[in-house]
Amino acid sequence: MRTIMLIVEYDGTAYVGWQIQPNGLSIQQVIEEALARLINESVRLLSSGRTDAGVHAMGMPACFRTTSRIPIKAFTAGLNSFLPSDISIRAASEVPENFHPRREATTKHYCYTLHVSANRSPLRRFYAWHMRGPLDLAAMRAAAAHLVGVKDFASFRASGCAAKTTIRTIHRVEIAEDGEFVRIDIIGTGFLRNMVRIIAGTLVEAGLGRRMPDTVSDLLERPDRSLAGVTAPPQGLCLMKVFFDNEPDCRKILDIGK
Amino acid sequence: MRTIMLIVEYDGTAYVGWQIQPNGLSIQQVIEEALARLINESVRLLSSGRTDAGVHAMGMPACFRTTSRIPIKAFTAGLNSFLPSDISIRAASEVPENFHPRREATTKHYCYTLHVSANRSPLRRFYAWHMRGPLDLAAMRAAAAHLVGVKDFASFRASGCAAKTTIRTIHRVEIAEDGEFVRIDIIGTGFLRNMVRIIAGTLVEAGLGRRMPDTVSDLLERPDRSLAGVTAPPQGLCLMKVFFDNEPDCRKILDIGK
Repeated sequence: MRTIMLIVEYDGTAYVGWQIQPNGLSIQQVIEEALARLINESVRLLSSGRTDAGVHAMGMPACFRTTSRIPIKAFTAGLNSFLPSDISIRAASEVPENFHPRREATTKHYCYTLHVSANRSPLRRFYAWHMRGPLDLAAMRAAAAHLVGVKDFASFRASGCAAKTTIRTIHRVEIAEDGEFVRIDIIGTGFLRNMVRIIAGTLVEAGLGRRMPDTVSDLLERPDRSLAGVTAPPQGLCLMKVFFDNEPDCRKILDIGK
Repeated sequence: MRTIMLIVEYDGTAYVGWQIQPNGLSIQQVIEEALARLINESVRLLSSGRTDAGVHAMGMPACFRTTSRIPIKAFTAGLNSFLPSDISIRAASEVPENFHPRREATTKHYCYTLHVSANRSPLRRFYAWHMRGPLDLAAMRAAAAHLVGVKDFASFRASGCAAKTTIRTIHRVEIAEDGEFVRIDIIGTGFLRNMVRIIAGTLVEAGLGRRMPDTVSDLLERPDRSLAGVTAPPQGLCLMKVFFDNEPDCRKILDIGK
């Protein structure tokens, strides 16, 4: 048996999310069906996590086991010829047989993009959250500073989230302006359901002056989802990269992401 | 009578192009119909030029005359509420009554984006020309240098182009790398039909080593469309901005474009 790891880029606009669901087409299902055509085997993909409907990925790792002996290159160029234009295998490699991309993930890098302008942008409509603003980036950075460290993020998870512990580590939150766009890069060990989107919604409230930056500290000390910000819409979110090495350098990660 | 100038951003993916045509939906038609609903008047839009099917714009100027006295703000936020998500009015202003956005345009800035990678990118599939490469940027820049100045671009126009003269002025061509993407910024007084896409196709041939950079000089001296490069596909092209002042500073234009 070989275990193959795919690195998948996708535009999540047309899908119900990464994971196979009864209510519509998922990215996982499309790739599993393309794999079945390529290697004539029914395989099950294990990913590093899920993304919601409308959320994108530059680099989602997904592993499967196979008895096929076809060259590794067939899992990029070959598999892509069976995939629609909104899903692409950007890299493929052989990993140790029992490698598990969720359990062995050490760090994840997400990016959330805001579009701040009086009028919406057609060219970024599927890739940013449009708001009129203005945003006070200094207030957003002050709010974000509270999130860095080993914290209880119970205030920052969706009501349906079933994670056993709500303690997570955020290594870094970077907020950068690029013309009309504001980019929030978040790097951490792992994230609860909707956590990045609720963080984005909370930082935006600070940026709009609707929340004092220091209230974020209260949210971490006294968990209460109802006091955190709104869940930012999915199209602004992109899973940039998942790391499997022990101590990734956040500065380097941010260079990769740009 | 008032003359209003709109600055329009659009995603050209779903349209037959800017101009009204019998064979499908154009951006011009959609805006004219939205204007009719807003001001209850049938108006005809005059633009600074056309874009082909699949080509995008960040800032296409379009003017119309109206007897309506509604505030200028209604032509951004108000008009946008009648427009689909792939078309947006980014600005509106009142201009002199006989202003003609094609005749008075002095400079146009286009950007062509290439995606150089073994595997295609879902997130940029509608906004870049994918190629495997590698591209020799030095060769592309050497080829591009021949294009700058007052030249005869007869080799760089589509067969159906009816322009009376093929002499045009290119102020500047900039080629910049950003990760897997290469961006070609072209600034000039005006362009023949398909000229920017044929230039992009010709520069790519130089970058791939399939054409010596100096052959571009021959193309300008002995016009022959069959010897120029292929017409690059539409999705990589975006009209960034049109200028109406006399001598725009190319360095500033490029800063605006980024």
